[in-house]
Amino acid sequence: MDVAIIGGTGYGAVELLRFLHNHPHVNIKKVISHSNSGRDLADVYPHLTEVADIQMSALEVDTLAEEVELVFFATPSNVSKNVIPSLVEKGVRCIDLSGDFRLRDGDKYQEYYGEEMASQQYIDKAVYGLPEINKESIKEASILANPGCYPTATALGLIPAVEQGIIDKKSIIIDAKTGVSGAGRSLSLNVHFSEMNENFKAYKIGVHKHIPEIEQMISERAEEELQVIFTPHIVPMTRGIMSTIYVDLNDQYSTKQLLDIYQSYYKDHPFVRVRPEGVIPATKEVYGSNYCDIGLYADERTGKLIIVSVIDNLVKGASGQAIQNMNIMYGWDEMTGLDQLPIFP
Amino acid sequence: MDVAIIGGTGYGAVELLRFLHNHPHVNIKKVISHSNSGRDLADVYPHLTEVADIQMSALEVDTLAEEVELVFFATPSNVSKNVIPSLVEKGVRCIDLSGDFRLRDGDKYQEYYGEEMASQQYIDKAVYGLPEINKESIKEASILANPGCYPTATALGLIPAVEQGIIDKKSIIIDAKTGVSGAGRSLSLNVHFSEMNENFKAYKIGVHKHIPEIEQMISERAEEELQVIFTPHIVPMTRGIMSTIYVDLNDQYSTKQLLDIYQSYYKDHPFVRVRPEGVIPATKEVYGSNYCDIGLYADERTGKLIIVSVIDNLVKGASGQAIQNMNIMYGWDEMTGLDQLPIFP
Amino acid sequence: MDVAIIGGTGYGAVELLRFLHNHPHVNIKKVISHSNSGRDLADVYPHLTEVADIQMSALEVDTLAEEVELVFFATPSNVSKNVIPSLVEKGVRCIDLSGDFRLRDGDKYQEYYGEEMASQQYIDKAVYGLPEINKESIKEASILANPGCYPTATALGLIPAVEQGIIDKKSIIIDAKTGVSGAGRSLSLNVHFSEMNENFKAYKIGVHKHIPEIEQMISERAEEELQVIFTPHIVPMTRGIMSTIYVDLNDQYSTKQLLDIYQSYYKDHPFVRVRPEGVIPATKEVYGSNYCDIGLYADERTGKLIIVSVIDNLVKGASGQAIQNMNIMYGWDEMTGLDQLPIFP
Amino acid sequence: MDVAIIGGTGYGAVELLRFLHNHPHVNIKKVISHSNSGRDLADVYPHLTEVADIQMSALEVDTLAEEVELVFFATPSNVSKNVIPSLVEKGVRCIDLSGDFRLRDGDKYQEYYGEEMASQQYIDKAVYGLPEINKESIKEASILANPGCYPTATALGLIPAVEQGIIDKKSIIIDAKTGVSGAGRSLSLNVHFSEMNENFKAYKIGVHKHIPEIEQMISERAEEELQVIFTPHIVPMTRGIMSTIYVDLNDQYSTKQLLDIYQSYYKDHPFVRVRPEGVIPATKEVYGSNYCDIGLYADERTGKLIIVSVIDNLVKGASGQAIQNMNIMYGWDEMTGLDQLPIFP
Repeated sequence: MDVAIIGGTGYGAVELLRFLHNHPHVNIKKVISHSNSGRDLADVYPHLTEVADIQMSALEVDTLAEEVELVFFATPSNVSKNVIPSLVEKGVRCIDLSGDFRLRDGDKYQEYYGEEMASQQYIDKAVYGLPEINKESIKEASILANPGCYPTATALGLIPAVEQGIIDKKSIIIDAKTGVSGAGRSLSLNVHFSEMNENFKAYKIGVHKHIPEIEQMISERAEEELQVIFTPHIVPMTRGIMSTIYVDLNDQYSTKQLLDIYQSYYKDHPFVRVRPEGVIPATKEVYGSNYCDIGLYADERTGKLIIVSVIDNLVKGASGQAIQNMNIMYGWDEMTGLDQLPIFP
Repeated sequence: MDVAIIGGTGYGAVELLRFLHNHPHVNIKKVISHSNSGRDLADVYPHLTEVADIQMSALEVDTLAEEVELVFFATPSNVSKNVIPSLVEKGVRCIDLSGDFRLRDGDKYQEYYGEEMASQQYIDKAVYGLPEINKESIKEASILANPGCYPTATALGLIPAVEQGIIDKKSIIIDAKTGVSGAGRSLSLNVHFSEMNENFKAYKIGVHKHIPEIEQMISERAEEELQVIFTPHIVPMTRGIMSTIYVDLNDQYSTKQLLDIYQSYYKDHPFVRVRPEGVIPATKEVYGSNYCDIGLYADERTGKLIIVSVIDNLVKGASGQAIQNMNIMYGWDEMTGLDQLPIFP
Repeated sequence: MDVAIIGGTGYGAVELLRFLHNHPHVNIKKVISHSNSGRDLADVYPHLTEVADIQMSALEVDTLAEEVELVFFATPSNVSKNVIPSLVEKGVRCIDLSGDFRLRDGDKYQEYYGEEMASQQYIDKAVYGLPEINKESIKEASILANPGCYPTATALGLIPAVEQGIIDKKSIIIDAKTGVSGAGRSLSLNVHFSEMNENFKAYKIGVHKHIPEIEQMISERAEEELQVIFTPHIVPMTRGIMSTIYVDLNDQYSTKQLLDIYQSYYKDHPFVRVRPEGVIPATKEVYGSNYCDIGLYADERTGKLIIVSVIDNLVKGASGQAIQNMNIMYGWDEMTGLDQLPIFP
Repeated sequence: MDVAIIGGTGYGAVELLRFLHNHPHVNIKKVISHSNSGRDLADVYPHLTEVADIQMSALEVDTLAEEVELVFFATPSNVSKNVIPSLVEKGVRCIDLSGDFRLRDGDKYQEYYGEEMASQQYIDKAVYGLPEINKESIKEASILANPGCYPTATALGLIPAVEQGIIDKKSIIIDAKTGVSGAGRSLSLNVHFSEMNENFKAYKIGVHKHIPEIEQMISERAEEELQVIFTPHIVPMTRGIMSTIYVDLNDQYSTKQLLDIYQSYYKDHPFVRVRPEGVIPATKEVYGSNYCDIGLYADERTGKLIIVSVIDNLVKGASGQAIQNMNIMYGWDEMTGLDQLPIFP
């Protein structure tokens, strides 16, 4: 199957290339970059020398629709919403790694993304693609809104507890930490090596784009309007996200009982690994892979549950999950092209 | 004044040496190390070549009491409790960087430290040395229990809110992050470079020694028995601690109002810097210095206050604070020997 | 084909597992570990949870010879020399990632490895497995001595120049730099995170085990006895080796001419990528992959050639090359199981 | 004494502030920044909150000359050459951390700096300020050209060997490695955290600005025209430089003999520490301090001497050395304000 990637110089695109290189059913027909049209990929990413012999091109919707069946958008915010509608009308399916089609509420979109949302008919078509939660609806999606990195780690950690009714859904506090690659390839003093190395920072407290996304998803699963506290931090490492989540338990549960609930919830989902009692996953244990690893600790003294959920922000938090969604959309095995062990050490 | 340092090969000792090198009133008479008696400091710490020409010696309490007025203990747990009593009886003042004299409750000590607590008469003599909170009692201390690194960052972030009655004291959640040097110089797979680099981990959830220390201190300030949730994490960097603290506000406050309360609380304390609205401190901004920097964010949507407090774990979290306490004990200016800017970048 | 890995808790073994997981012709029948016999791999390496459900076992040569066709040794020095002979006698082929069968001179072995060399008849059987140089002899090997990490990067950088007679072979200086994982999983203060982070060190100058290995290989290609200067350094990162090599040119060459020679030399070798003029490869550009990337700079002012060669020390410098050798030994395509792009960023 | 710093937002300036904060004879009257005039220093460098209450101002040469006795230039290339002449004419002494006044040969300046050199009369006035080599001439300098970071580490490692005639002066090869802060605060993809972390690179081979500076200095000490090979590399750490230098020995020397020569050469220079036999310094052992540490290894097999010299690039390689030069210019003890131990770990 021929596909295209738009946003060819970002980390999302380059990580799609890494996994699609080993995907048996996919051929990368085009890599599209506004700013680098005409250049070879290996000029921009020397690690692709000799292995991805692709010249980047500019976007032309009409020809693209003839050349490919599926387009991945690895673009900044407020780009895909202007392109996806015309592609969809021409019968091309789209997987959007940006946030343009994730929210359903236009006011929230305006507040957090600073522009008007895509028109409602396309928002209605869009399926939020978290395969462990809504695999069925993904199968038929023409617009697949690929979840954000923090929402993925957070949702997979929270949803069994939310759905099983074992926690006070109004008590959710998420203390999240990300590696620096989450900030992308755009230059900024915040991620200048000399200032980010040997440093740990909180940022965008109360205003991060992923707050409405997390709240929308959790509210849907809980079937009531919920708010969360979400504080992102940045860690001096390239890859990895950890969400440490604090919730009040509704009743007395042992850690073991809760782990059983989680293990049962995820038993058919190969990319979620629930750790045994006493073991809390570290970010490096999923490095470069599509796994989400979860550990639990029920604090009997205070009646709180502490959930630790880790992913690689560029894989399960972006490109890996996009490919997982594609596999489901086309009826292939979910792990096709993604069956790689974490890289350790 | 002649002083000794016991525990000469740990990071606490070496950081004491760094600051005392520029202290006008102190002469390091002895560096004592059980395991390295007879060796030159520069053999064990080559960065001290030519600048700290000291041969380490073994501990002999009687001669030590004749040679020095003050002893710093930078020893592992359960060492100082066996030595400090006899030194104090001989009139030597002791500053203990370990946790042996911090707790007042023998059962808690037994539970978290795995041994019996020091005898009650010496526990009663011990003063918990957080100068911003209890400067007066420090002045006369013969046994100074220097606070732990997490408790220091956490207490300085929480106490104004606790004392001013603006928060629900039962709602405290502390998500803490430390640089790796907090684990000391003892070898362990956890802090083996190849496994800790590019990694972020939670550890000792629910069982960390600093839980009872934080609870004791907060309870004393609150004048009621309090419990906290405390989750420590380890960051792939050498120095720095951040405590991100979540509490429920009792009333509606703006961030600005809360910052005013904090600024007023710390106005006479040169080592605490409360940041202006919209600014959250990062750990690197106190690197190598004795500062504790605090930022606040009142989340009006959820009625929560988020407090971010950062220190250098080896300075304000250990050796710098020990020297600050010594300065107070001897009537010197609090900043003597500690007036150094953070090292940046 | 059933294979076994001996040395199951080292980084060499775990990297073999990562690549063999995707190898279509190989089944890992046994992972053998002296120190961890009976434990699950996932206990020792939690990133393998659910994906490598293997219990480690102790070594029993007789049963092993019945169960597998090939054994990988990822053991410390001076282990495989005592085991390989009996396996080979039973018809099992062995790939040795340690240095036991690399040197042909017993005195050198004694000097650098501190023990007696394996007996001569097995040394004679051993083939030094650098596929870009001696692919033919690898095909029939029963004992395959997999090259060291530094020798691989260095040889691939040097050999075209040595063989084409364009340099003064007596002028070779190698300034090499490695990531920390080269030191393995054994604990040591040298690679304790707090001491290795933000640090750069030279080590083992003049006494490193890879000196005789480099000299033997270069001498064989040059058909004369050569000596080299080799200075290893350690970089605060987990993976990657760079050899910066200085040699005197015999004549006036432009960088472009030399690159043509190199490109032609490696044109049939898919894992060596010679960069165009003006581009020098960085270690991250081969991260996690089996590539060796080479850049050249001819300094016309001084008549020197500077060669920069980079590999991932755990892949092309160890486990990846071992699998490449296995592929050749069994007549499979050289890239089988190894066709993975570098992980970037 | 009142001084000014021009180039207030670079790392050179901020490191001058750190050391001058504790200098007993100096008052920082002005911090001048073209791009940040009118802003508070603490806005640009939050770690200076409350401790450096300075508003940056624009450059006005006339008023500046009335307000201060000395000006530090921590500016990019090709700035100070346009300002220093008029300040010097007004009797202000200038210490220039940039390269504008280091070279004496206008053609070389044009070649490596891309502009015309300062006019000859001011070049003639300029003193190259490496105190261990030419302390006497520094005393009277009106224009002090503070050496580059690489030239400092390299010269201190090479000069005893060059002056004592023990090496072949035509054989010098310098393989140099720097921490990332050497690249300054300007944004660039090269030092973007995600691309520099876990990476090691060579750069600017054959074209680095420090080549003519090293050659000029070495040639002057050797009293003949010399050329060197100099290859800079960048290490994923913030601070530190190591020069690994390879030279041919003229005769047979033991490491011990050479160390004696070096120790005797530097015996009156408190900032150079020659390590004992068998000990090679690491960059972290001088972190944050003004020391230059040197180790030697004479390779008897090949007749080569390997010299390892380490500094903190921002201290002895820039701001610390500038203050050391100031101390000499004003007759103060060389260590005034600089007597700080390396920060370890």
